[in-house]
Amino acid sequence: MNNQKLVVIGGDAAGMSAASKVRRAQPEREIVVFEQGNHTSYSACGMPYYIGGLVESEDELIARKPEVFRQKQNMDVRIRHEVMEIDVQNKRVRVRNLDEGNEFWETWDDLLIATGASPIAPKMEGINADGVFTLSLLQSGIDVFDFIEKAKPAKAVVVGGGYIGIEMAEAFIERSIEVSLIDMAPQMMTTLDPDMADLILDYMKEQQVAVFLEEKLVKIETKADGSVKSVTTDKQSLPADIVILGMGVKPNSELAAKAGIKLGANDAIGVNKRLETSAPHVWAAGDCAESFHLVTQKQVHIALGTVANKHGLAAGINISGGNTEFPGVLGTAITKFKEMEISRTGLSEKEAKALKMDYQAETITSVSPSGYYPGAEKITVKLVVDKQSKRLIGGQIVGFKGSAKRIDTIATAITAGLTAQQVVDLDLAYAPPFSTVWDPVQMAARQLV
Amino acid sequence: MNNQKLVVIGGDAAGMSAASKVRRAQPEREIVVFEQGNHTSYSACGMPYYIGGLVESEDELIARKPEVFRQKQNMDVRIRHEVMEIDVQNKRVRVRNLDEGNEFWETWDDLLIATGASPIAPKMEGINADGVFTLSLLQSGIDVFDFIEKAKPAKAVVVGGGYIGIEMAEAFIERSIEVSLIDMAPQMMTTLDPDMADLILDYMKEQQVAVFLEEKLVKIETKADGSVKSVTTDKQSLPADIVILGMGVKPNSELAAKAGIKLGANDAIGVNKRLETSAPHVWAAGDCAESFHLVTQKQVHIALGTVANKHGLAAGINISGGNTEFPGVLGTAITKFKEMEISRTGLSEKEAKALKMDYQAETITSVSPSGYYPGAEKITVKLVVDKQSKRLIGGQIVGFKGSAKRIDTIATAITAGLTAQQVVDLDLAYAPPFSTVWDPVQMAARQLV
Repeated sequence: MNNQKLVVIGGDAAGMSAASKVRRAQPEREIVVFEQGNHTSYSACGMPYYIGGLVESEDELIARKPEVFRQKQNMDVRIRHEVMEIDVQNKRVRVRNLDEGNEFWETWDDLLIATGASPIAPKMEGINADGVFTLSLLQSGIDVFDFIEKAKPAKAVVVGGGYIGIEMAEAFIERSIEVSLIDMAPQMMTTLDPDMADLILDYMKEQQVAVFLEEKLVKIETKADGSVKSVTTDKQSLPADIVILGMGVKPNSELAAKAGIKLGANDAIGVNKRLETSAPHVWAAGDCAESFHLVTQKQVHIALGTVANKHGLAAGINISGGNTEFPGVLGTAITKFKEMEISRTGLSEKEAKALKMDYQAETITSVSPSGYYPGAEKITVKLVVDKQSKRLIGGQIVGFKGSAKRIDTIATAITAGLTAQQVVDLDLAYAPPFSTVWDPVQMAARQLV
Repeated sequence: MNNQKLVVIGGDAAGMSAASKVRRAQPEREIVVFEQGNHTSYSACGMPYYIGGLVESEDELIARKPEVFRQKQNMDVRIRHEVMEIDVQNKRVRVRNLDEGNEFWETWDDLLIATGASPIAPKMEGINADGVFTLSLLQSGIDVFDFIEKAKPAKAVVVGGGYIGIEMAEAFIERSIEVSLIDMAPQMMTTLDPDMADLILDYMKEQQVAVFLEEKLVKIETKADGSVKSVTTDKQSLPADIVILGMGVKPNSELAAKAGIKLGANDAIGVNKRLETSAPHVWAAGDCAESFHLVTQKQVHIALGTVANKHGLAAGINISGGNTEFPGVLGTAITKFKEMEISRTGLSEKEAKALKMDYQAETITSVSPSGYYPGAEKITVKLVVDKQSKRLIGGQIVGFKGSAKRIDTIATAITAGLTAQQVVDLDLAYAPPFSTVWDPVQMAARQLV
């Protein structure tokens, strides 16, 4: 097995985690990585902060460059190489060298598909106008940054009120650009419940973001020079010098589908817990692949850096002859908008309701740190439990400094199958600069007991 | 039972939590609380921040005043009343009214002892000098504050490098008072391992605290007017205008012992998991009582506000006819010194070694938040596991902003019996402003796998 060739499609989190794990386990194995973009192992999640001017250089977002993989880890990493076709039968991929335009076939003994996910950009008038961006590859972040430097936009419109949407709204504020945000949903952050999302909405409005919910993007109007002029919704027209589309992502699973590999949840590549696809010796990991959800016990598609890294690690172990299972996800996520911190894990109330689960939800508002300590601000914690067993199945936090990372306590409790009472019983850390004596998470749990 | 009288000795966290719980369960029951000090339900943990000038008024440290308990909760709360004797046989206590000097007997059907703990102050020359303080009752914190306002001390000596010691060192710095700290131990913070404590030592020195370890307090020299002049150790003499003794605490269990009630760990009042003492209808809760340790499965004495509140809640449930057990402790604690955050839970490596456990410990140093995000600073996480099962038994964190509350994840994992691999597998929250993609806690766990 040590002499068998591993080909990896995609050189970011999942692909390079897996390749690195294989390299450590099998120092002599041949490893070839094809990455269509210019960069490897970069922090896509860092792009809004780079655009906002908080990160000095795009280089800081790159954990490891292609030449380092080549020189230090003896991997044949080729950027600007796009895989056009997977031939499962003959165990080979057809690759295009994007710079030279030529194509060639590369054989493999194991193939890892780590093609990521792509931002959803509806086909409509003006969508390709100069100044309209999605965020995907690191290059897209650099492009936005460069555009701001050059064009000095005064007004931005962000389409979509999810993670990218609020992070980019913050970035624009950092750059002194006036921001409007539209979303067709009746709430911000649809991964949270409406009551929690409303707290974010209020704060964003307070911070001078013009938020328009239940408004659908209809078209983008352009100036004579082809640059964006305004965003037209079903209700109004918003002037815009720059537009960010943060309308969600779809897994890059077309290559796999065309090769006859089975797709799963949300058309992500179907995998078992070992990250094996339906084709022999073909693995998939990261944003292009589905994941097992620990609460619903079903496959879901969750495109997050944490998941991609864990996928990559598990795939790498299995590809190099080990045997491990991907542990599953809770969809734990965290972000911030200016001073407001936001996090969620497990099932929201509306997800539990949609799944017709017998659940109970409680929300508390307290303060963090201790009320008398400087900087104490409101924190709201919502917990969802299975009504019968009282086991935690989800949690959401909206608060300020030091609030949202508490979601980890909830995620750990859900994973371990703890009940609300067991959360109340936890010996959590207290000191006035950090918390109230009953941590807000425990206050919420007490409401459920 | 509703008409039976409950007498509570001690009006702080444990006593008033219990009394409040009983009141909610039994609206008509007679409840009498004797508190020797001037205040009820105050945050002893907040005193260093009050002294440091971060809290506007001592009133902010008080969660609920005696008159509120009297008026809103119909409790007979009497401050400045000291219980002198417990008569278990005749179910009564002898009480002294400290203002009027008279004594009387009060009968009870249930008695809750919540007398707290007292700072250790060795009997030695000068220990009662003007300007030498311990922190116990809220009044002691007010006294220190008032002394600083009046005497304007230029130099402080803190005896003891534990929580009180480092928090008071910070308070003095906030007040622009030069601080020296002495401890007879070879390390700061003996609840942590020496390697972790050294990080704190280095930082404190950097922040201009003169720290002297392995130095024993010998005597305190006084001026002609009876105020403190200097602190003499076995190695040197340190000039001092104010001295804080933070040399640990001992449980206030003498009353109980004299009444024939069994003492337990560290001479704390012995209790079962229901918080019952060896005497019928006599309960104990808070800093005066022992607690069940979840890892060692033995009784220990841990004087912390979180434990006192949980003790009080459990005792209140049981006293009012319910049936619950105190869930046990891990000794989870957190504090900070200036920008450095410090936390611990479960067993330290040296505790595991002392218990002759077969353990494994690993320490990692990473950054938090993401390395490229503004404000990223070092974080060090140490985890201890049982070597055979790889189950977590302890953790320690030393880092900067947003670091130390991660101890809650570790405490939750220990309580749930998770292994290092299960911690690696947790779906914890990541975004650049909060964390690296593998949380530092998981990085430490990966070292153990």
